[in-house]
Amino acid sequence: MTNTARHTTAIILAAGLGTRMKSRLPKALHRLGNRPMITHLIETAREVFDDVVVVVGPDMPELERVVQPCKTVVQADRLGTAHATNMAKDLFGDGDIAVLYADNPLITAETMRRLTAARQSGASLALLGMRPANPGRYGRIVEEQGRVSRIVEFKDATEDERQITLCNAGVMCAGADDFRTWLAAVDNNNAQGEYYLTDVVAMAAVQGPVQCVESPETELAGVNSRAELAQAEATLQARLRTAAMEAGVTLVSPETTFLSTDTVLEPDVVVEPNVFFGPGVTVRSGALIRAFSHLEGCTVGEGAMIGPYARLRPGTVCAADTHVGNFVELKNVDLGRGAKANHLTYLGDASVGAETNVGAGTVTCNYDGYFKHRTIIGERNFIGSDSILVAPVTIGDDALIAAGSTITEDVPAEGLAFGRARQVVKPGRGLEIKQTLKAKKEQG
Amino acid sequence: MTNTARHTTAIILAAGLGTRMKSRLPKALHRLGNRPMITHLIETAREVFDDVVVVVGPDMPELERVVQPCKTVVQADRLGTAHATNMAKDLFGDGDIAVLYADNPLITAETMRRLTAARQSGASLALLGMRPANPGRYGRIVEEQGRVSRIVEFKDATEDERQITLCNAGVMCAGADDFRTWLAAVDNNNAQGEYYLTDVVAMAAVQGPVQCVESPETELAGVNSRAELAQAEATLQARLRTAAMEAGVTLVSPETTFLSTDTVLEPDVVVEPNVFFGPGVTVRSGALIRAFSHLEGCTVGEGAMIGPYARLRPGTVCAADTHVGNFVELKNVDLGRGAKANHLTYLGDASVGAETNVGAGTVTCNYDGYFKHRTIIGERNFIGSDSILVAPVTIGDDALIAAGSTITEDVPAEGLAFGRARQVVKPGRGLEIKQTLKAKKEQG
Amino acid sequence: MTNTARHTTAIILAAGLGTRMKSRLPKALHRLGNRPMITHLIETAREVFDDVVVVVGPDMPELERVVQPCKTVVQADRLGTAHATNMAKDLFGDGDIAVLYADNPLITAETMRRLTAARQSGASLALLGMRPANPGRYGRIVEEQGRVSRIVEFKDATEDERQITLCNAGVMCAGADDFRTWLAAVDNNNAQGEYYLTDVVAMAAVQGPVQCVESPETELAGVNSRAELAQAEATLQARLRTAAMEAGVTLVSPETTFLSTDTVLEPDVVVEPNVFFGPGVTVRSGALIRAFSHLEGCTVGEGAMIGPYARLRPGTVCAADTHVGNFVELKNVDLGRGAKANHLTYLGDASVGAETNVGAGTVTCNYDGYFKHRTIIGERNFIGSDSILVAPVTIGDDALIAAGSTITEDVPAEGLAFGRARQVVKPGRGLEIKQTLKAKKEQG
Repeated sequence: MTNTARHTTAIILAAGLGTRMKSRLPKALHRLGNRPMITHLIETAREVFDDVVVVVGPDMPELERVVQPCKTVVQADRLGTAHATNMAKDLFGDGDIAVLYADNPLITAETMRRLTAARQSGASLALLGMRPANPGRYGRIVEEQGRVSRIVEFKDATEDERQITLCNAGVMCAGADDFRTWLAAVDNNNAQGEYYLTDVVAMAAVQGPVQCVESPETELAGVNSRAELAQAEATLQARLRTAAMEAGVTLVSPETTFLSTDTVLEPDVVVEPNVFFGPGVTVRSGALIRAFSHLEGCTVGEGAMIGPYARLRPGTVCAADTHVGNFVELKNVDLGRGAKANHLTYLGDASVGAETNVGAGTVTCNYDGYFKHRTIIGERNFIGSDSILVAPVTIGDDALIAAGSTITEDVPAEGLAFGRARQVVKPGRGLEIKQTLKAKKEQG
Repeated sequence: MTNTARHTTAIILAAGLGTRMKSRLPKALHRLGNRPMITHLIETAREVFDDVVVVVGPDMPELERVVQPCKTVVQADRLGTAHATNMAKDLFGDGDIAVLYADNPLITAETMRRLTAARQSGASLALLGMRPANPGRYGRIVEEQGRVSRIVEFKDATEDERQITLCNAGVMCAGADDFRTWLAAVDNNNAQGEYYLTDVVAMAAVQGPVQCVESPETELAGVNSRAELAQAEATLQARLRTAAMEAGVTLVSPETTFLSTDTVLEPDVVVEPNVFFGPGVTVRSGALIRAFSHLEGCTVGEGAMIGPYARLRPGTVCAADTHVGNFVELKNVDLGRGAKANHLTYLGDASVGAETNVGAGTVTCNYDGYFKHRTIIGERNFIGSDSILVAPVTIGDDALIAAGSTITEDVPAEGLAFGRARQVVKPGRGLEIKQTLKAKKEQG
Repeated sequence: MTNTARHTTAIILAAGLGTRMKSRLPKALHRLGNRPMITHLIETAREVFDDVVVVVGPDMPELERVVQPCKTVVQADRLGTAHATNMAKDLFGDGDIAVLYADNPLITAETMRRLTAARQSGASLALLGMRPANPGRYGRIVEEQGRVSRIVEFKDATEDERQITLCNAGVMCAGADDFRTWLAAVDNNNAQGEYYLTDVVAMAAVQGPVQCVESPETELAGVNSRAELAQAEATLQARLRTAAMEAGVTLVSPETTFLSTDTVLEPDVVVEPNVFFGPGVTVRSGALIRAFSHLEGCTVGEGAMIGPYARLRPGTVCAADTHVGNFVELKNVDLGRGAKANHLTYLGDASVGAETNVGAGTVTCNYDGYFKHRTIIGERNFIGSDSILVAPVTIGDDALIAAGSTITEDVPAEGLAFGRARQVVKPGRGLEIKQTLKAKKEQG
């Protein structure tokens, strides 16, 4: 969607292999906040632009899958950024286009809007600039009489030009027709023999005013190495943590809380140190997520207490006032209001009724090697410790499973079930065995 | 207790709701280092002042409970800091009073003592000032001819006054009678229509010298948002970590060690990365707390090895040379000298004798849904893996529990107990079942 | 080994007790990156020098053991650094010697080589200098006409000399014979009554040019307190993390990854937050190490997925495409290609064949209190949940173990084994027990 009258298309260049990443994975697929870098950029671009087109490299089927439903074009030969952009020229439309980069995944919608607005307020071309703490080898934006005249690459820059602190981020926006004209005119008469997109800036400057939109370095710093990927992750996490705290969430030790972009934490949620939120988590007001917990694809109800060391996996819904304790894994589980599973338990593909207490060491056998089966446990049950529930199996309300039982058949409501051997004691035999073993050990 | 001859009373203003916290909880109850902010301040104030009085808001029963045994007064209407202080005027006594704030919880006893000493060395009023890195919208302390003349609020300050770097922290100390007189004279002729305590500074300056006691920003920075709460937690943790290291404790990665104010770590304790110490933990010299461990309300003896992933809960005492290993939870357990529980175990309400070895997957069933029962295990026992001990149950010394047994009755000393079914093998049947399931799966 | 023609010997001074560490352990034995500080220094020194000699204190048998096979000499009385160095004079050889310190463990081989090269390029003595952010009480290196003339201790320095930013790190290199001569001339006419090694610098300066080799503070900052030990650990970890990322490893949150110096992570390994790598770990390309995992002495194959909360202990080899899940401990285990152990499991002294699935809650009983026994599980097995395998025991290929079984005897290939009691249900009895307990509780 867009706020502007003109049709806008974002062209995302994502053909890069990322040599400095030293990876078999296309650079755009490296992950930030639990999802591919390019997914961040596409989601943001779709908030601002009418269309999003992705230029991918050859043999990147996984990337083409990930960027769906965006249109893709393949850049078969890597001949430079102008060449890559030109690959998409049939999809430019007749409004404005903006060129974005898969390795600048953290640019915000606000910055994209400032870019398109600058273009639409009369600039022949608008581009993003930044003033990095260490400008290093970035191209510099040369201004003459208050207007951008051109970009100079670092290696071509004079000593004076290298003193310029305003650096080129590569992102630019202009009319589609202009872009087609300029791209056709870019040549590859340079050391690398590549077609550089930056060359269009000088062409645009001839045609009309070029406007630079200054943006924070954290949005525009490129991701070209694993260290830069880690830095981008830190930037993303800092954003997410700040937003959570502003919304009324206590992060006891924010730098140890790992969030996903879609994590929903309501006010008065308290998150203790060292908690990992994978994708798809919602935590309701007043819930406490204790230290060392790991949550993905789950919902935690009001006033629930999760952890320490609780693992909630996709498909899990913990109702209000539930308790999930240490070394407990829930996968695809509905845990009813006030139910508890506090110690060393695996529940998979199960529903547990309200106020049921699941004892320590309980395991649902949901998998037979080929099929997954469900375990259905009623309300107000007492599931004794170390019970094994072999699914499919149903346990009615108000039932009681004796500790140490293997349950293979349904248990009716109010029933008592057990499946365990009687205890036998052999007096003196314990010490005997011990002495025999000890003697054997002493003999070597 | 106090070092001074004059009687001193601290008035703590704690009526704030903390709108910026976006919380249903009174601000003073938000937690730092595992306990309410106000508890930190009260404990420190009680080291320095003879009496501590807390001004609470209406409908804050939990806060009134937490601040016990301090006296409380309720400020029914929130009409400003002078109004709040005045609520307590009948409890000022006849010595000096100091006004403190629930949202400045990290002020040290030393700073409080410097404040009262400044007052008692002839100042009509002593106040705390700080020079924050970013003075922002703090009120400024205006000095004339080397003396404090007044506080100017940021919004009322001239451009020149805004250049002052010495900021008002709000904390002040003066004679009780003077305070009563000044408070009666404070008016609410200001934009907010509130009675501001800062107004008494100018009154005090007329009466005699006002002295500013400069203090570190980290002690005085206010907690008004979740981000500031996290910052205060970081300040507190940094203090606790530094103190632990100075006392001869190795924190391998101090920024990942989470301490409580009452954590006692003796010299030559080693703490690996990512360890959480809740309230009430004592660890004796030479013990090793391994990564990802979580301890609360427990004592760990000399030379013990805890973790990784060990959870010690309240009431647990691990004697010297004990080993508690991964995914083991101990709650209200006495673990005897040299005893071991190394893998995937839950022991609750139990005593384990010296040199006993508790096998992997052992569970004590201490809870029947209504009552908790104890498990008593003697010395030199060998508790086979995956044993279930249904409490109340007692196992004598030198006994042996066979792996996989459910133990419901007492086992005498030196006895061997088992309670498990015999193994049955059906040749070829494993493959048959597999093939049947596989065929079913292939047919869909 | 050495690159130089002259024979070189490193003398490491390691007799210090480290009073400020407040420890019963000799300072040199405090650990960095999971091994003693001195081991780091010795390993680096052995890359550069032909011989390494360690000067230890009296009664340090553990230190003498750790530094093997280096030669050691004992400094019985602690009379200063010159005295300590002189203890080793019979082991100086006839080439060059360099004096290093156990409490400077992070000096790099490159810096050591620059030091010896400086000496061999004509200096009578070469020493290491640094320019610390806070020079504090370090001795200053005094240069006159571009040459080092002497070291002045902070307490003896004039105000002008204290302005010098080049500080003495104490490390120096010179000819063995010269050193013997100079050391014999050092006296103890100073406040402490000690023989200081720094005194030889002035003697060397008389004899010929003294050269200062400037080095980063992070290499030379001394470890004299637990806080400095933590700082050194941070420096070491930062080096290891940077090197891993440069090699093509994704560390999602590098500051939460704890590495050992010998950790081998191949390109395209992804490490999630909060992972601990103890000594001896190799992870092959494409493996994913999930959050909260703890690895020591193990190898993880290509494409394997480990964690969250997986603990791999020494002797464990996880083949390609294996899955090890939450709350699973493997000790001395061979996990075959594609095999899985995903939930709440302890496997010790076991081999698990390819494509075998180990169910939740499985435990191998490998220890009888005196001996360890092996469990051998074939390929394509299905080990039902909560199975107990009492070693020594062998399970053939394509077998099936029913959930909840205790297996004490071998299971042939393709067999089905179970060892569990039949389930019994008593209708209504569950509710009855509950009501009885409830009534009892209500009566108190």
